[in-house]
Amino acid sequence: MSPERLAFVGGTGPEGLGLAVRFAAAGHAVIIGSRSPERAQEAAAKVKAKVARAQVDGRLNEEAVEAGEIVLVTVPFAGHRDTLKALAPAIGGKIVVDVVSPLAFEGGQIRALAVPEGSAAQQAQALLPQAAVVAAFHHLDAGSLMQLEERLEADVVVCGDHPQAKLRTMALAEQIAGVRALDGGPLANSRYLEEFTAVLLSLNKNYRAHTALRIVGIARAGGGPRRGGKAAPR
Amino acid sequence: MSPERLAFVGGTGPEGLGLAVRFAAAGHAVIIGSRSPERAQEAAAKVKAKVARAQVDGRLNEEAVEAGEIVLVTVPFAGHRDTLKALAPAIGGKIVVDVVSPLAFEGGQIRALAVPEGSAAQQAQALLPQAAVVAAFHHLDAGSLMQLEERLEADVVVCGDHPQAKLRTMALAEQIAGVRALDGGPLANSRYLEEFTAVLLSLNKNYRAHTALRIVGIARAGGGPRRGGKAAPR
Repeated sequence: MSPERLAFVGGTGPEGLGLAVRFAAAGHAVIIGSRSPERAQEAAAKVKAKVARAQVDGRLNEEAVEAGEIVLVTVPFAGHRDTLKALAPAIGGKIVVDVVSPLAFEGGQIRALAVPEGSAAQQAQALLPQAAVVAAFHHLDAGSLMQLEERLEADVVVCGDHPQAKLRTMALAEQIAGVRALDGGPLANSRYLEEFTAVLLSLNKNYRAHTALRIVGIARAGGGPRRGGKAAPR
Repeated sequence: MSPERLAFVGGTGPEGLGLAVRFAAAGHAVIIGSRSPERAQEAAAKVKAKVARAQVDGRLNEEAVEAGEIVLVTVPFAGHRDTLKALAPAIGGKIVVDVVSPLAFEGGQIRALAVPEGSAAQQAQALLPQAAVVAAFHHLDAGSLMQLEERLEADVVVCGDHPQAKLRTMALAEQIAGVRALDGGPLANSRYLEEFTAVLLSLNKNYRAHTALRIVGIARAGGGPRRGGKAAPR
């Protein structure tokens, strides 16, 4: 695929940083957004330290979003609503990839938080009615993403109601070595993806592991979706 | 493991029948329960046709439950509450493995149904306070289970609050060739398992596939849970 300009809203946390490293390594331009320009630039320097040839910059969230073609949302859920509300004018009709899992950690257990709109991604779509919101990347372990020499063995299930945005996100996901992207249906399915993160984090704790997901039973070759010639772009 | 006597509540549907075939093939005694003794016996005959040496019988749900040591619940969700309420005295303090995913199919889409207790398995535990309820087996494809010659490549994530019941269910799951059982934490996590079934069914539809789940990142050897020496029994 041709290089994309990817803006990360809240890109200084581990998940945003890990994805930024992988996409920078694949030749995409990355703009790390933060509420603090200093922390954005520190995060950009971390990407540069991992990927010497990275095209990477750190900016205020709003400037990052304006400079990006695809916006990846990697904020903590606590800041999800207010952050996206404030950025709505800057985001406009862009593709928004929501990576957020609304989870709470209490008494050694992890649980999913109820979201009035159904899911974090559905909340994003409600706040950004012009944008093409897609849900993806919830199940990639941040630590594994940071280890560039590690080939991931993982499927990224992508949900969304905008076919073109979904296909572009699936193509982007497959830029990460070892990742296969799968069409997981409409945005309404995003809740099941987000909440399943709680199971993976429970397994990580029980087994001291860094888990990811593989869907078995779908042939890699000819594994494109069934209708409308939407073969997975590779 | 030593042979168990497994009672299936609502064992005439595809998921119950598929599990019954696999466990009968592994040498366990299987009692298929139904509201209709005729349909129970027809289902038992189907198991026998697949596994000539099967120890299998078909009975009324209540009689099946009384005869079983472990009760597997494979009813449609529409009948889940009333069936378990009626069977509570017969089930008593037994191990109950809830396999039910509360899903609705509407307009070509699949969605998870809200359950007041949180999940089908949590509903079972509320209705059966003496029993040790475990949630498992949601993600095994019924068609694949019926093909005895097919080695499954799947993980069964098991959730529950009763450690011994969970371990016994994990050992049972690993009687199915190719299945690895994983401790997915407390029963409260069962909702995320049940709802994720909607994603697998969406993928089945999009890719004309029979999907199952693999968790990557957990070493098969020495992959036992972390605490209290609860190594997965094999």
